[in-house]
Amino acid sequence: MRTLTVLGATGSIGASTLDLIRRNRGDWRVTALTAHSNAAELARLAREFGAEVAVVADETHLPALRDALAGSGIEAAGGPAALVEAGARGADVTVAAIVGCAGLAPTMAAIEQGGVIALANKEALVSAGEVMLAAVARHGATLLPVDSEHNAIFQCLCGNDTADVRWITLTASGGPFRDWSWDRLTAATPAEAVRHPNWDMGAKISVDSATMFNKGLELIEAHHLFPVGLDRLRIIVHPQSVVHSMVEYRDGSTLAQLGPSDMRVPIASALAWPRRMDTPCAPLDLAEIGELTFRKPDEVRFPATRLAREAAQAGGAVPAVLNAANEIAVAAFLGGQISFTRIAAQVEDVLGSYAPPAPGSLSDVLEVDGEARARARLLVTST
Amino acid sequence: MRTLTVLGATGSIGASTLDLIRRNRGDWRVTALTAHSNAAELARLAREFGAEVAVVADETHLPALRDALAGSGIEAAGGPAALVEAGARGADVTVAAIVGCAGLAPTMAAIEQGGVIALANKEALVSAGEVMLAAVARHGATLLPVDSEHNAIFQCLCGNDTADVRWITLTASGGPFRDWSWDRLTAATPAEAVRHPNWDMGAKISVDSATMFNKGLELIEAHHLFPVGLDRLRIIVHPQSVVHSMVEYRDGSTLAQLGPSDMRVPIASALAWPRRMDTPCAPLDLAEIGELTFRKPDEVRFPATRLAREAAQAGGAVPAVLNAANEIAVAAFLGGQISFTRIAAQVEDVLGSYAPPAPGSLSDVLEVDGEARARARLLVTST
Repeated sequence: MRTLTVLGATGSIGASTLDLIRRNRGDWRVTALTAHSNAAELARLAREFGAEVAVVADETHLPALRDALAGSGIEAAGGPAALVEAGARGADVTVAAIVGCAGLAPTMAAIEQGGVIALANKEALVSAGEVMLAAVARHGATLLPVDSEHNAIFQCLCGNDTADVRWITLTASGGPFRDWSWDRLTAATPAEAVRHPNWDMGAKISVDSATMFNKGLELIEAHHLFPVGLDRLRIIVHPQSVVHSMVEYRDGSTLAQLGPSDMRVPIASALAWPRRMDTPCAPLDLAEIGELTFRKPDEVRFPATRLAREAAQAGGAVPAVLNAANEIAVAAFLGGQISFTRIAAQVEDVLGSYAPPAPGSLSDVLEVDGEARARARLLVTST
Repeated sequence: MRTLTVLGATGSIGASTLDLIRRNRGDWRVTALTAHSNAAELARLAREFGAEVAVVADETHLPALRDALAGSGIEAAGGPAALVEAGARGADVTVAAIVGCAGLAPTMAAIEQGGVIALANKEALVSAGEVMLAAVARHGATLLPVDSEHNAIFQCLCGNDTADVRWITLTASGGPFRDWSWDRLTAATPAEAVRHPNWDMGAKISVDSATMFNKGLELIEAHHLFPVGLDRLRIIVHPQSVVHSMVEYRDGSTLAQLGPSDMRVPIASALAWPRRMDTPCAPLDLAEIGELTFRKPDEVRFPATRLAREAAQAGGAVPAVLNAANEIAVAAFLGGQISFTRIAAQVEDVLGSYAPPAPGSLSDVLEVDGEARARARLLVTST
């Protein structure tokens, strides 16, 4: 019997996590579940799993949550401080799946309890990687990546020494525009960008996949998670998204992790680590799939991975600036304010004009994030 | 500094092993080197690596070996008993690379010393699997497979529990005849059969690759090495031979090992285990390779894998009979006495007519082997 907290229980990662827990009820006891604002769904899940506490980040939904939990004996709470408190309750495994910088503080609180953190919050590592990994080391926490690529790398490194790594290769689907010309890219619409070929994802991450910023952010994450040196990290385009990532060793052996495009696979890997647990995912049938293809990424049409590599190289506040500028640019693209190819151009502009010192704390990170967003918004309105 | 013995030093696996040792001379001291009959090459290698003892299996070459080693201070010996004694000297790592049943006794002698056995002798596991694994357990030896497929599986299992395995999938190139019709197969010549598309190998193993008996023998080996149950072992045809094998876990994760078609990769993996060592093999460039394809095996045109699966299922002496019958049939095919498609037919005939009891010792295995060969030879002459 292990205890579990899910920060971001009503999102896609949260739902996949709880689907797995539902199939293995006897093995888990739920400590805390949190959501942004969906009080009804959060209350339903808290009742189903017998959580100790349910927290809505947006306090205006706390009365609704209280009503929905009336008579259940489950504690209801709301607001940022309650979110941090939920993380700080400690659980054997905390799934950190709150999107964006809102997830940083509760994730840090969970890290400070020293348990297993199944990390699905990209911003945590991209914006606050150095601060967060220092906390992981200080508190003896175990960070298990849930992103399919990083989880793949984690699995391929299992039982090996990072000193023996020759290359870590992140695979990228290349997104819906991988074969589009520059001219066609400049005219790409939001509707076209969110139509991802392999994964069913939200709008923001679908656009990130189309620009390759998603892979760029993953490169920065990998740089923090797997300290083999940036020059040993590379990206390959693999349209079928069957191989989730690879590690090549100094002897010429490459280990790859393959699987369906179903987040329950990496989540299960993190939940059950160092063992395995059942998932309902269909076995891999490579004879049915027939072929897997690979090609070099094109950083002229898709400059995002170059920008991300430069940001990781620079370190300090630069990755946080890149992430914030990208979020604003993507929102502006989705809102019809800027063109698709302006996303990367605008990120590069913000990076060129704002170079704050390295953040030493979570509040420094949030300040950098806020200032970078403000500068990015100015660029949108002046475009 | 670790000690090394190479049983079969002048063959292809032996040469690859010593190539790696040559590049890491400071880490290794050579105990024994053995060869079948090539005394000149054996003496050259024994001098180069400062071996304690050099052994020719064929005693008629012992005088030549003595002459070639004169003044070196290296002991020279010859004959089957000297071969066993070389294995019995014990070394931290023994590379068991003698082809055929001749390798059984010295490999068993090495196992009895309890060190690491890097096993490249297929017959050892196919014919004497049960006897050999009992000895490994009894003497606390560590068996590391050097065959590229089994080494791949070993790497993919690292850090995992076999209880969590859903499938182990052996990849097969499909050999040079994978797209040939039955009619064309019946007329295939020895020259066509030995032209393997990916690996540079000897005639016997090339024919085994063309018939798929090689994959069948590997299936039997895998059944001994990785006790997940025969119904969890399967074969997939992968013409590029880049993916060397795969393991799928109950959570839907598949781990695959990829690499060049160079035996130095799996040998290095076994020599350095549980660490890694450098090899001169070029890094894997999947963008350059472009595509990897997969398809189901066709057991109508290539019945070998079906026969091997049935032999593994039956256990006892049956795999030894299959192996012996195949060796005779392949020799008959290479000698122009039987057609290509008669190889599998003749193996099936021998299996149908000879069902000895399970061997309890190495001498039982050798007796079964001898009798199966005699029966197979009779079939050749009566064809």
